[in-house]
Amino acid sequence: MTDRIRDFLRLRRPEGPCLVVDLDVIRENFLNFSKALPDSRVFYAVKANPDPAVLKLLAGLGSNFDCASVAEIDMARNAGATADRISYGNTIKKERDVAAAYNRGVRLFAVDCPEEVDKIARAAPGSRVFCRILCDCDGAEWPLSRKFGCDPDMAVSVLEHAHRLGLVAYGISFHVGSQQPNPDAWDIALKSASAVFRTLSERGIQLRMVNLGGGFPAKYVRDVPAVKTYGQAIFTALRRHFGNRIPETIIEPGRGMVGEAGMIKAEVVLISKKSATDPMRWVYLDIGKFGGLAETMDEAIRYPIRTPRDGDATEPCVIAGPTCDSADVLYEKTPYELPVSLAIGDEVLIEGTGAYTQTYSAVAFNGFDPLKSYVI
Amino acid sequence: MTDRIRDFLRLRRPEGPCLVVDLDVIRENFLNFSKALPDSRVFYAVKANPDPAVLKLLAGLGSNFDCASVAEIDMARNAGATADRISYGNTIKKERDVAAAYNRGVRLFAVDCPEEVDKIARAAPGSRVFCRILCDCDGAEWPLSRKFGCDPDMAVSVLEHAHRLGLVAYGISFHVGSQQPNPDAWDIALKSASAVFRTLSERGIQLRMVNLGGGFPAKYVRDVPAVKTYGQAIFTALRRHFGNRIPETIIEPGRGMVGEAGMIKAEVVLISKKSATDPMRWVYLDIGKFGGLAETMDEAIRYPIRTPRDGDATEPCVIAGPTCDSADVLYEKTPYELPVSLAIGDEVLIEGTGAYTQTYSAVAFNGFDPLKSYVI
Repeated sequence: MTDRIRDFLRLRRPEGPCLVVDLDVIRENFLNFSKALPDSRVFYAVKANPDPAVLKLLAGLGSNFDCASVAEIDMARNAGATADRISYGNTIKKERDVAAAYNRGVRLFAVDCPEEVDKIARAAPGSRVFCRILCDCDGAEWPLSRKFGCDPDMAVSVLEHAHRLGLVAYGISFHVGSQQPNPDAWDIALKSASAVFRTLSERGIQLRMVNLGGGFPAKYVRDVPAVKTYGQAIFTALRRHFGNRIPETIIEPGRGMVGEAGMIKAEVVLISKKSATDPMRWVYLDIGKFGGLAETMDEAIRYPIRTPRDGDATEPCVIAGPTCDSADVLYEKTPYELPVSLAIGDEVLIEGTGAYTQTYSAVAFNGFDPLKSYVI
Repeated sequence: MTDRIRDFLRLRRPEGPCLVVDLDVIRENFLNFSKALPDSRVFYAVKANPDPAVLKLLAGLGSNFDCASVAEIDMARNAGATADRISYGNTIKKERDVAAAYNRGVRLFAVDCPEEVDKIARAAPGSRVFCRILCDCDGAEWPLSRKFGCDPDMAVSVLEHAHRLGLVAYGISFHVGSQQPNPDAWDIALKSASAVFRTLSERGIQLRMVNLGGGFPAKYVRDVPAVKTYGQAIFTALRRHFGNRIPETIIEPGRGMVGEAGMIKAEVVLISKKSATDPMRWVYLDIGKFGGLAETMDEAIRYPIRTPRDGDATEPCVIAGPTCDSADVLYEKTPYELPVSLAIGDEVLIEGTGAYTQTYSAVAFNGFDPLKSYVI
């Protein structure tokens, strides 16, 4: 909660639930990333928050952009980024979208299988490709799946295949899992990456880049290490596995760049119990899983919630959204402590919501508008 | 898959993933509901698919409308429904939204706690209220939660409270769980409802209505009983618990009305494996959890998928969406059988997707457009 957001809400009094994002926090985060990992190029993960003002700020600061689609590539270009500062980082691309990116000048693509290499060789000849590898990194709060990446052994053949087809086998990427609280999580992945570098080098292919991915956390309910700590741990791991031949590196912060910059204002619509003897209150807000808080899925991300009654005695409660969908419950398995004095109509502030909220909101579920967003 | 949908896709060849809804199927479903439950009034659950053409058709057929928000109330009115055919069925309402509904002439409201009754007494004086009760109905495919409804004992005091405040204590509602394959699920709930009727009658309050809710299934991968079977089971249960004094009843079909009327056309973006020895293919579509298939959450709803290679030998695969989100996986715990010959670029048809798809799609996650919808 920054003074600028507090002032905005006090003066503008926007109606309905809304997200307010403070650009000053993003600027500071960008500078912190640059300082913590001075030799890495920052590729901001546009999907985290693609608001034009956010992209424009970052483009001006010199950021590069990790894009998930042609639409995101266009957003980055509209914000002022030239094509050489854009990576098409989605491993799942239609061939016509690869061609569209290539026509816009993009020459850096993610792959994780030979089929995707084939598309890029046809539609974006001569481009640089990096292969995403699976990494076994426990501890991330947002569920990591096997959806992206391949086995490191397979990455060797994927990149050899790219090389044979005239592409530049450029590097390796991985992702240690979003909201990764453990700075040492990069170590195992870098060990795998360095093995791929060595094997390919023995076959005459010199990779040049490691994409360290995202995973840098935002502060939610629990404290997280500072970006500096991540920078040190990553540098140590790079030294350990690459010795004096540390490759070019890039990072793709999304949540870590914009998460703490945003705050959602919401309203308590109803507080009730299920029976006369029920010890548990249900607190219903005017925002839920389908209005922007999709990352409460399986109660994965636990946002700090401020109320006008903070300081009063608290009791656990279930928190749910306003739709008629029974799945629209935010926190129930692990109930949430909120003031006993909390009342219907109270305004609550949901912190750390600058990333992965607005663009997730449903177009019109239950007739509710998508989350409004103000970037200040 | 109807001939009209097949022809539309063949002639129009819409670009990108899209939903096509056949109004003829909805008309037939409406008539089937009317026939199966001839003494019940149909309140279509607008949230399932609020497309103006769907609402207009149903309004013309004489349907009433169960609305989750003021926006849905306005959609129903725009489709031609008068206010006396509208129920504000969400138990979670802002008081100013209750007032807005009242100003539009709506006089029927759902409640499940005294706090909500207070709002309605203040903002919609004299209106009819029905109290939703929790019911312990196993077997529904979409997760049932305790989000809506109260204990039947509490419903007695909620409705007495409404009566004291000058509202019409009108009835009881419940929901046996969406996609409920068991027609006998209504029996237990009707037993609870009849007990509330009796208790209140002894205290001089005569309830008049039972809202039987939704829960009527659409056919997905598994066969489901016909609506007629549900009608018979419900009538038997009504007789059992209310004897010769069967109350007025309403039903709120959503999925059962529009689910089978719609079909999503999608494209195979990528098919790959995670290692050279991996037995499992990953099939990536251009639609996923955030593009309209939110109900694949926890693999709850399992849609039938048709491919141009049906009839060829099949093998299990994981199915995932096109976004960079690791949670955007549709079916993995229980892999899906698809033809071994399935190829990148193939068009697939996802059946039974007329309900709870388009309005769930994210506004712009990863830069992808919300699901397009064509109602024919």
